[in-house]
Amino acid sequence: MELGLVGLGKMGGNMRERIRRAGHTVVGYDRNPDLADVGSLKELVDGLQAPRVVWVMVPAGAATQSTVDELAELLEPGDVVVDGGNSRWTDDEKHAGELAAKGIGFVDCGVSGGVWGLENGYALMYGGDAEHVAKVMPVFEALKPEGEFGNVHAGKVGAGHFAKMVHNGIEYAMMQAFAEGWELLEAVDSVTDVREVFRSWQEGTVIRSWLLDLAVRALDDDEHLAELRGFAQDSGEGRWTVEAAIDNAVPLPAITASLFARFASRQDDSPQMKMIAALRNQFGGHAVENK
Amino acid sequence: MELGLVGLGKMGGNMRERIRRAGHTVVGYDRNPDLADVGSLKELVDGLQAPRVVWVMVPAGAATQSTVDELAELLEPGDVVVDGGNSRWTDDEKHAGELAAKGIGFVDCGVSGGVWGLENGYALMYGGDAEHVAKVMPVFEALKPEGEFGNVHAGKVGAGHFAKMVHNGIEYAMMQAFAEGWELLEAVDSVTDVREVFRSWQEGTVIRSWLLDLAVRALDDDEHLAELRGFAQDSGEGRWTVEAAIDNAVPLPAITASLFARFASRQDDSPQMKMIAALRNQFGGHAVENK
Amino acid sequence: MELGLVGLGKMGGNMRERIRRAGHTVVGYDRNPDLADVGSLKELVDGLQAPRVVWVMVPAGAATQSTVDELAELLEPGDVVVDGGNSRWTDDEKHAGELAAKGIGFVDCGVSGGVWGLENGYALMYGGDAEHVAKVMPVFEALKPEGEFGNVHAGKVGAGHFAKMVHNGIEYAMMQAFAEGWELLEAVDSVTDVREVFRSWQEGTVIRSWLLDLAVRALDDDEHLAELRGFAQDSGEGRWTVEAAIDNAVPLPAITASLFARFASRQDDSPQMKMIAALRNQFGGHAVENK
Amino acid sequence: MELGLVGLGKMGGNMRERIRRAGHTVVGYDRNPDLADVGSLKELVDGLQAPRVVWVMVPAGAATQSTVDELAELLEPGDVVVDGGNSRWTDDEKHAGELAAKGIGFVDCGVSGGVWGLENGYALMYGGDAEHVAKVMPVFEALKPEGEFGNVHAGKVGAGHFAKMVHNGIEYAMMQAFAEGWELLEAVDSVTDVREVFRSWQEGTVIRSWLLDLAVRALDDDEHLAELRGFAQDSGEGRWTVEAAIDNAVPLPAITASLFARFASRQDDSPQMKMIAALRNQFGGHAVENK
Repeated sequence: MELGLVGLGKMGGNMRERIRRAGHTVVGYDRNPDLADVGSLKELVDGLQAPRVVWVMVPAGAATQSTVDELAELLEPGDVVVDGGNSRWTDDEKHAGELAAKGIGFVDCGVSGGVWGLENGYALMYGGDAEHVAKVMPVFEALKPEGEFGNVHAGKVGAGHFAKMVHNGIEYAMMQAFAEGWELLEAVDSVTDVREVFRSWQEGTVIRSWLLDLAVRALDDDEHLAELRGFAQDSGEGRWTVEAAIDNAVPLPAITASLFARFASRQDDSPQMKMIAALRNQFGGHAVENK
Repeated sequence: MELGLVGLGKMGGNMRERIRRAGHTVVGYDRNPDLADVGSLKELVDGLQAPRVVWVMVPAGAATQSTVDELAELLEPGDVVVDGGNSRWTDDEKHAGELAAKGIGFVDCGVSGGVWGLENGYALMYGGDAEHVAKVMPVFEALKPEGEFGNVHAGKVGAGHFAKMVHNGIEYAMMQAFAEGWELLEAVDSVTDVREVFRSWQEGTVIRSWLLDLAVRALDDDEHLAELRGFAQDSGEGRWTVEAAIDNAVPLPAITASLFARFASRQDDSPQMKMIAALRNQFGGHAVENK
Repeated sequence: MELGLVGLGKMGGNMRERIRRAGHTVVGYDRNPDLADVGSLKELVDGLQAPRVVWVMVPAGAATQSTVDELAELLEPGDVVVDGGNSRWTDDEKHAGELAAKGIGFVDCGVSGGVWGLENGYALMYGGDAEHVAKVMPVFEALKPEGEFGNVHAGKVGAGHFAKMVHNGIEYAMMQAFAEGWELLEAVDSVTDVREVFRSWQEGTVIRSWLLDLAVRALDDDEHLAELRGFAQDSGEGRWTVEAAIDNAVPLPAITASLFARFASRQDDSPQMKMIAALRNQFGGHAVENK
Repeated sequence: MELGLVGLGKMGGNMRERIRRAGHTVVGYDRNPDLADVGSLKELVDGLQAPRVVWVMVPAGAATQSTVDELAELLEPGDVVVDGGNSRWTDDEKHAGELAAKGIGFVDCGVSGGVWGLENGYALMYGGDAEHVAKVMPVFEALKPEGEFGNVHAGKVGAGHFAKMVHNGIEYAMMQAFAEGWELLEAVDSVTDVREVFRSWQEGTVIRSWLLDLAVRALDDDEHLAELRGFAQDSGEGRWTVEAAIDNAVPLPAITASLFARFASRQDDSPQMKMIAALRNQFGGHAVENK
């Protein structure tokens, strides 16, 4: 089939390649002309036969919104837009409504796979009406891993991004689990080879997992991670997961702890711990450390 | 080689079988005569040629202590005792010292694998002197999974149980991660098939893991876990992990949250939340619910 | 001065009384005619001399929005609306803008004091332009406690509700602190009189506080809180505090733990702990409890 | 009455002064001869009439143990030893048993009050047999605050230190509550005067407390705590509180979060966040920051 693909960065570029390898035609557009197959969204739309499928793979928020707005003007009834970026699930219903007003279908799709996706395939979670999903299916088949798993029609519009968001929330807590365990092992004298302990866990244990494999890879590069700073960004999905939990009164202690650990990692000095120091000094005369 | 194996319960019985399948001789003792090969520890020791290796696989605490005490009387210099149970790592040095006073070696070994170990092999983490470990190695080779991973000499006496304890701490937080994510997905309307979302994650995602596979199995048995009570025991290692972290001033927020969630799951009514209800009533006249 | 007061429930009714005791004129409106001084918002507005101050004390959300909408139609340039309810701070800027378009001022005011406010005074945190705040000042003076503290101009529009929201977030964690301590003391045998321990803490300790005094009152009513269910609602400010923290990448572990404990207290059975139980059963054959 | 007082540091010295002001005789011993009234423990014991009361106010652990050991040799049946230091409650039963073997009584006493105790009095929580407590009562009366609260016979031997430990656990979470709220207020633009918000809370609010008063004092010294490092020690009681909770399967999320925040504040770089950074880099090619 033919696919229009908007956004050819690290993710989008690899996805174009994987879809082409599956024998489909991809017309790609990117603001960066060095990456693009066509010079504008209009050219991209004109270059596809109706009914069209256009996959949007640009940053969540303003960039996705303006792309959807523009596609709403350019596309025709019967076409379908897929938002494969990291949009907040709450944006999906708005985008779907805006496009539906013009007779254009909408599918939201969470994509997991990172830099490994080109070779291993991408896990896909999508939401929307069955008829719209059906039009995109050949592309989903091209992108997904080769095994029997890796793609799911999760539910209504928004369900794809919601499922991907929860995936990332789980990912935060799994990473935190390994990180806490690693720090504790490194802190004691009796365990003399923490890296080999991690390596051994890759078979036969309850915690064997791809993240564990990656941890071993990282330790093989730098046994004590001595070259790294203990500093972690967060990309939105963790925050949204906690917000969704609050909206639904679901307690999420481990995932939230993982998010907060990242926040704290980015502070040069902790304001709240200054207050703790100040209070200890006030009631107990405990020494404070001045800057 | 010959091995004496003390404790032939769910774990020990399967381990005897796996070691025998590898061609070794196992003389097993259990308090339950229906399970045992010999009638007493003395018979077990007498039935092995020196230098002997005796693997203890009985409940941590009093049962392990009394078995070690008895073996210290029965064994000879040059023999080795392996504690493969779930002992607290702090017990190992005591046991090693007690046995060393008689010239008997000691190796502690954390064993992971549960009911799957007989077929898939057991992950093994052991601690102790190299000469003692060497004497047990054929048994480790028999028990471990077939791949290149799954056993490690983690360090000094105690390191095996310490590594296994941290494994279990990580396991607690990974389980909690999936559990939190599952509850959140079940709480929203837009995701119409949570089980299929979990199933899809088994390939191509960052969170693919054996625990995820098991979650899918559990959901295949009972899609919404409607037959289960939300009630979870803990078996000691989670508590010890947090205590070890406190001893080493290592923050462990996700693992500890997972432990506390289990504690709370076992309370019919939460005493602390009674106090919250009482305080809200005191200052705000907020309604309380009486029993 | 004259004040229009909309909403004469538990809080509003007591506030009317306290303001009148201070010698001011209050014209009160409530949908419930048994509580109201006038029959409509229009009558209320007509009964006040310009420039008017109208204090809105109705539930956050739709009720506050519709009252603000109606007042925007009824009031005149130079009048001021005070939102003294529990509105989310993000609503304030919208309300202020809507009123400013008609030349009407807006002040948001967080009010603390509960059922004790009539006698002890209400703590007030307000936000808005100095000229608008000045018009309300006599009412603030009437409502506040008699000492030198208890009211603050916290900043711009929204700052009052933001400060009150954070106050409540702190309150959640302080309540949780006492609740956790109480549960732990009740759990051990050596401490034979937990209520008297709490009572003793009311002087000389670092934790002496009004909440502690209230805890002692509650224990005097019911020494072991045996009549209560461990069940706590939350009224929005705790959730908003965590959301604001997430927006600002501020880690809030203790306040969030307190919020999640309330969520969990309202679940008959914990879905996430069902998943934990299911996973333990899958890998270890651990017994589950069926319903 | 007469009291022997061992340990005349910051706490002990002030306590000697307060007891003397109440008209009692205090014979003080300290290793530092500049502080001491007598040159040795033996001189202290010889200088008191039987039945004696000797209050030990030295660091927990080895110093307290050796003092108790020495007093067990020097004192006579009918005498009483009070441990007023910060001993772990688990040490008390051991000390009581050791002294009881010689007919000497033992009372453990948790003392709160810090640098303010000399003027305001010390809150006291004590454990032990009624007959031993009775012998110390005049000293308790001298030390306690003037109001009706501030001292309690909490239960059996160990109950005093246990109650004081829980007091400190609660204190940790209350401090953390104010610290989190303060950081959040400082993080937003709309609240222009955070210090005045804190000051206003001192009356009429639910969170009014001595710790709040101290926070205002600290902010008056340094409005944004700009001179301090966000660095907090912990003195043992917080750790023991969490350990006691684990022993009793009591969930303690807010207190534990407060303890872990202190641990993290003391790390120059967080090992666990290095692992998070390494994993993000592995799966997503996310940039890491090198040292």
